[in-house]
Parts: sequence; structure tokens; C-alpha cells
Amino acid sequence: MKKYLDLYKNELLDNIIPFWMEHSKDQTYGGYFTCLDREGKVYDRDKFVWLQARQVWMFARLYDTVEKHPDWLEMAGLGLSFLKKNGMDKEGNFFFSLNQKGHPLVQPYNIFSDCFAAMAFAAYYKIDPREEYAKLALNTFENILRRRENPKGKYNKTYPGTRNLKSFALPMILSNLTLEMEHLLGDERVDEMASEVIREVMDVFYQKESGLILENVFEDGSFSDSFEGRLSSPGHAIEAMWFMLDLSHRFGDVDLRDKAVACGLKTLEYGWDETYGGIYYFLDSKGYPPEKLEWNQKLWWVHLETLVFLAKGYAMTGNQQCLHWFEKVHDYTWNHFKDPDYPEWFGYLDRYGKVQLPLKGGKWKGCFHVPRGLFQVWKTLEKL
Amino acid sequence: MKKYLDLYKNELLDNIIPFWMEHSKDQTYGGYFTCLDREGKVYDRDKFVWLQARQVWMFARLYDTVEKHPDWLEMAGLGLSFLKKNGMDKEGNFFFSLNQKGHPLVQPYNIFSDCFAAMAFAAYYKIDPREEYAKLALNTFENILRRRENPKGKYNKTYPGTRNLKSFALPMILSNLTLEMEHLLGDERVDEMASEVIREVMDVFYQKESGLILENVFEDGSFSDSFEGRLSSPGHAIEAMWFMLDLSHRFGDVDLRDKAVACGLKTLEYGWDETYGGIYYFLDSKGYPPEKLEWNQKLWWVHLETLVFLAKGYAMTGNQQCLHWFEKVHDYTWNHFKDPDYPEWFGYLDRYGKVQLPLKGGKWKGCFHVPRGLFQVWKTLEKL
Repeated sequence: MKKYLDLYKNELLDNIIPFWMEHSKDQTYGGYFTCLDREGKVYDRDKFVWLQARQVWMFARLYDTVEKHPDWLEMAGLGLSFLKKNGMDKEGNFFFSLNQKGHPLVQPYNIFSDCFAAMAFAAYYKIDPREEYAKLALNTFENILRRRENPKGKYNKTYPGTRNLKSFALPMILSNLTLEMEHLLGDERVDEMASEVIREVMDVFYQKESGLILENVFEDGSFSDSFEGRLSSPGHAIEAMWFMLDLSHRFGDVDLRDKAVACGLKTLEYGWDETYGGIYYFLDSKGYPPEKLEWNQKLWWVHLETLVFLAKGYAMTGNQQCLHWFEKVHDYTWNHFKDPDYPEWFGYLDRYGKVQLPLKGGKWKGCFHVPRGLFQVWKTLEKL
Repeated sequence: MKKYLDLYKNELLDNIIPFWMEHSKDQTYGGYFTCLDREGKVYDRDKFVWLQARQVWMFARLYDTVEKHPDWLEMAGLGLSFLKKNGMDKEGNFFFSLNQKGHPLVQPYNIFSDCFAAMAFAAYYKIDPREEYAKLALNTFENILRRRENPKGKYNKTYPGTRNLKSFALPMILSNLTLEMEHLLGDERVDEMASEVIREVMDVFYQKESGLILENVFEDGSFSDSFEGRLSSPGHAIEAMWFMLDLSHRFGDVDLRDKAVACGLKTLEYGWDETYGGIYYFLDSKGYPPEKLEWNQKLWWVHLETLVFLAKGYAMTGNQQCLHWFEKVHDYTWNHFKDPDYPEWFGYLDRYGKVQLPLKGGKWKGCFHVPRGLFQVWKTLEKL
């Protein structure tokens, strides 16, 4: 697997990062443009808080761990200042989206804006350790925990009592966020929080009979035979498994490591499209027609997160299935998502692997999964 | 065009209606199952209020205008009682979905539940004229008007003031609902309401330069260069144009008729996929990548509504373009959506015309667009 090291590293540093450096800066109002067409031209100027925060995080991480490149520091700061100034309402909740100038467009109904903002402030604090950033990160983190039982607040449309489900998304993201914030939270807090989150992911959402993780379960982890309850997102579950691998490393927990490798591989087998290749976006775990019309599309992030999982799984256990699958997913990913003619990667393919949307960035695709995935694989292979 | 009359009539009466009669009744709790697989087997028991109401309306309409078939009356009543008993919260707002027993699952965030409930009660009143049904229809209608300025109420996630857009969906549906409720609203009320709605559709949402209708515009009808503002849904606009044709008939308004025919044809040309056939689900009116991942899929309702528009347009004006397009859309629709092996039609094809989801009914497809479309074309051709 080590033979791929330079490929991942060079793609990150020579193709992906220069693309965002060149095309995404808003020099007028601060922050980043993320709606970039195939060549990098801006086609929409709205600013989606998730993506702003993720890009801050990415450049701060590169500056912190790869090279003290002043342009990267400046780039991270461009988004950080914009977020700090415009991102929050009076209670410290992060809006979902802003217009180019930073005026709020969509209310803070989505707690992932807050999760990625906390990650951004925490990462930026590492490269510019001002108290203010630590405070912003910690306040945002506490706010997330406060909103945990009802993350959507008044925008929650579920009628209480009839079918109380909980969603995989929050424990999944917290399992990454706690490690990302360890320098601010301290060891003890991470110990305590992480054990709770691991239990949620591996005991509650993980379904023993099938070996799969579901997106929504009853409060006690039992299965709900409904559209939400049957929903499986293979990429989401596999991404969570590399968070679990990181946690197993942090805790020296060999059982967790092996369980995560087994669950990730099982999910990959389940999610792989045997006919056309690639990993499905959504499946109905009972094999019924999924509700989501995009269910059979092949999305960039699913494949990148899977590569990270497989690289880590292989590096930590030497499991040959991880190696075998890495080659297979690597081939599909590089043959289909990498644009041979222009920089950055495509994000959205149809079931057959044809490009569905020619964009390089949009409302949901920013400077995150491609560079983080390449970075994670590179750094993992370095340790082999 | 008249040669198609029997085909549409027989398909409705011999294939579609028997399918719903056989598979959709919930004899235990009342109401209808709409999640039916290719052969008609129930795969999910949740009840979506839109679809419950639409099915009541359909059977009431058939009983009223086609034949006094006692099974159809009973079928309409099965859904009506369920809706009356379980559909509303204490303020008379209709929930979005209920479980099989009728307990609420999703709050009344979506005013289309109310629109179709009003249509259902109004149609049922025609075949069983009890005061109670008239009252339910009228109260629901007034409630819709009361909620008109902010249909989503507290579930509205738009931050006020930054970019105030209004959505095409409500005036579009009201342009049909007012005519559907004329026997309850009275001539004068319809005169007044319909003129207002026609103005909204043809002056505000209709864009003079492009000849197209957009899904979201600024309060004054001007264009917003944003994801929502650029969004076009050809099927939605074309469906609205047959509502306009009905209104032009009601008012004897020849200008409106001609404008509606021109706008519908223009939209169809714009929305037609020249490479693979069929009409796109969503387009970005500036040609940018649409936000919606299902943008290039081919949906049953889009094609049925287009056939209704073309049949009416031809019947009312003799326009040869309507005839030409009818043949083309007819061929695509019958070759792709009709299931050659089992009853009812497929709903969801990918861009290439392949079946994407094998269901005959689901969360959004019920006993409505196929039977209403076949019914409308049949009845229109009868007048030729």
C-alpha cells in the first residue's frame, strides 16, 4: 500500500490545495466561495457555514502539521475572521448559511454548523493560541452538548411521543470532535466523553444481527421498521469507523479496533455496487425502495472516507481484506472522481459512474473531504 | 389525438383504479396504504396526509363524474373518515404524516397537506352533501389563506430580511383549489381569488425575458441570483399552465389561454432532454449546476401533467405544436412509465429512462397523478 504515498501527497499539495488557494478567497468580504465550477469559476456567492468552518480547519491543520506556509495561515484566518464576525446568532448558535456579505440567510437549525465551527476554532487555536479562540471553541462545544437532546430546536418537525428516534449523525461527529478538541478539553474530559460516544456508536447504532450501523434507531437502540429506521448510509458508517479506529488508538483498545475494522468491511461489502462499481449513497436495510431519489449515486466523500478507513485499518491490523478493498476503491475513486482535465475532483456521479454535476464545489462540497482524505491516507501510509 | 381516448380511459378503469382498490385499503385502521411495491405488496404502513387526501379526492371525483359505483364511494369514505379523525391538530392544521393507527408523526409544517385535505372534503361533499364536510373544506381553506404569508410557520428556517423570496407552489396550488371548491366558495369569491392568483402566476412568477416560470422570486417578482432563485421545475410550471387553461375557460379569457399555451410549450422545449428523452425534474435557469441531486431524473407526475396540458391546449386552441408534443411525450411516457408486467406505473426513472425505484407507491407517489392525468386526458379528448 505504501507505493501510493506520493500519489496522495502530491495530489493534495499540487492539485487540490492550489485550486482552493486560487479560486475560493473572497478578498472583498472575507470567507470563502465554495460554489466553483469545473474550472474554478465562482457561480454562486452564498456562504455555507459548514463549509466555511471546514476550510478554516483544513488550512489550519495543514499549517500545523505539514508546513508553516504563511499563505495557509492567512487562508485559515480569512475564514476564521468571517465566521467569528458573522457566523453566530446572539446565543452563539451558528447559522446554516450567509450571503456573500455575511448576512444570515438560514437559521441555526443544523447543529453541524456548530460542530465544524468548534473544530475550526480549536484547530486555529493550535496555530495562533489566543485565549479568544479557545473560548469560542469551548463555548461552541458546550452549546452543542446543551442542544444535544433536540439539536434542531424549534425547527424539529417530529411530533413528540409517537416514534422517538435518535440520529447517528451527532454521536458520529462527536466521536471525531472530542479528539479534535483534546488540547482544549483535557484528557479526563475526553476519556469520559469518548467512552460514552463509543458506546453510542458501537452498542446502540450498531445492529448485532446484521453487523451494520443504521442512521436512526429507537432510544434503546432497537430497530424501527420505517423509512428513517431502515435507512443505511454506508459512507457515513464507514467514516465513523475510522473515527473509532482513531479512538481505539487513543485508548489502546484492541477490541474496539477489531470491531471497527469488521464493521467497516462488512458495511463496504454491503454498500458496494457489484454491477457498476462504487459505493451506494443510501440503502434500505430491508431491501425496500429507499425514500431518497439519489440513493444509487456515487458521491466523492463516501469514497474518500472509505479509503481513509481502509488505510488506517490496514496500518493498524495488517488485515488483508483492507488491502484488497483499498486497491479496489482506490481504482474506482481515482478513475471516476479525479478530473483528468481540470484541477480538483468531481463530487457527484450517477450509478453508472458518469459525472452528474460538473461542479468542484457547491452547497455541500467544499475544501474538506478530498483534501482531508488525501491527507489522512498520506499520513497513514507514512507510518507503514 | 382523439384516437387515444380509449387507451387513457381503459388504462384508468382497468389497470390503475383496480390496483388501488385491491392493495391500498387499510381495513384495520382506515385510510390507505400508499407504500406499495411493484406487485402491490405493502412495504411501509405510514400514512402521508397529502396522499390520503389525494386518494379521497380521486375516488370522490370518479364517483361524481364517471359512475355511481358503490365501491368507489366506500373507498373515498375510508380515507375521509381517517383524515377527519386523525389528520388535524387542535388548530385545524393538517399533520404531514401519521403512523398506521393515525397517530401523528410529523408536525403540520407543510401547507399542501391542508390544500389537498380541503380538496378532498370539497369533493366528498359533492357526493355526500353533509354540512359537516362543507364546513371542514371551508375552514381548512380559510386556514390556508390565514397561513399564506408564512405557510411553514415556526418551521420556516429562512432568516427574515436578508433575502425575502416567495414560492411558486402556493399560488400554483390555489389556482387549482379555488376551482375545485367553486361549489362551496361561490362565484364571486372565485372571481376575486382567481384573478389574484392568475396575476401571481402570470405576472409575478412568469419571467418576461425568458418566458419561463421560476420556483422562487423576490416579493416584487424580480429575479434572485441564488440557488432558490435560479431553480426551475418544468413539470411544476407546465402543471400550473393547465390550471391556467381551466381558469381561462372559466373566465372566457382568450389572452390568458394563449399565454398559458405559449408558456407551457416554451417550458416543455426548455425542459426536454434532447439526448435521452423525457423532461428534467429540475434545472438551474442560468445553466449552473442545480443543487438538487435528482435534477436529471424523469418523474411520472411531470410527464402526466404535461400530457394533460398538451391535450387541453390542443382541445382549446387546435395548436399543432400541442399535437406534435403530445405524440412525443405520450410515446416516452407509455414506453417508460407503464409497467408491462404488473399493474400501475413506475414513478422514478433515471436520466436514461431506466427504472430507479421499482415502487408503485411511496411517500410521495400515491393514487393521484397517474389516475388524474389519465382521467383529464380522457375527458378532454371526449370533447374533441
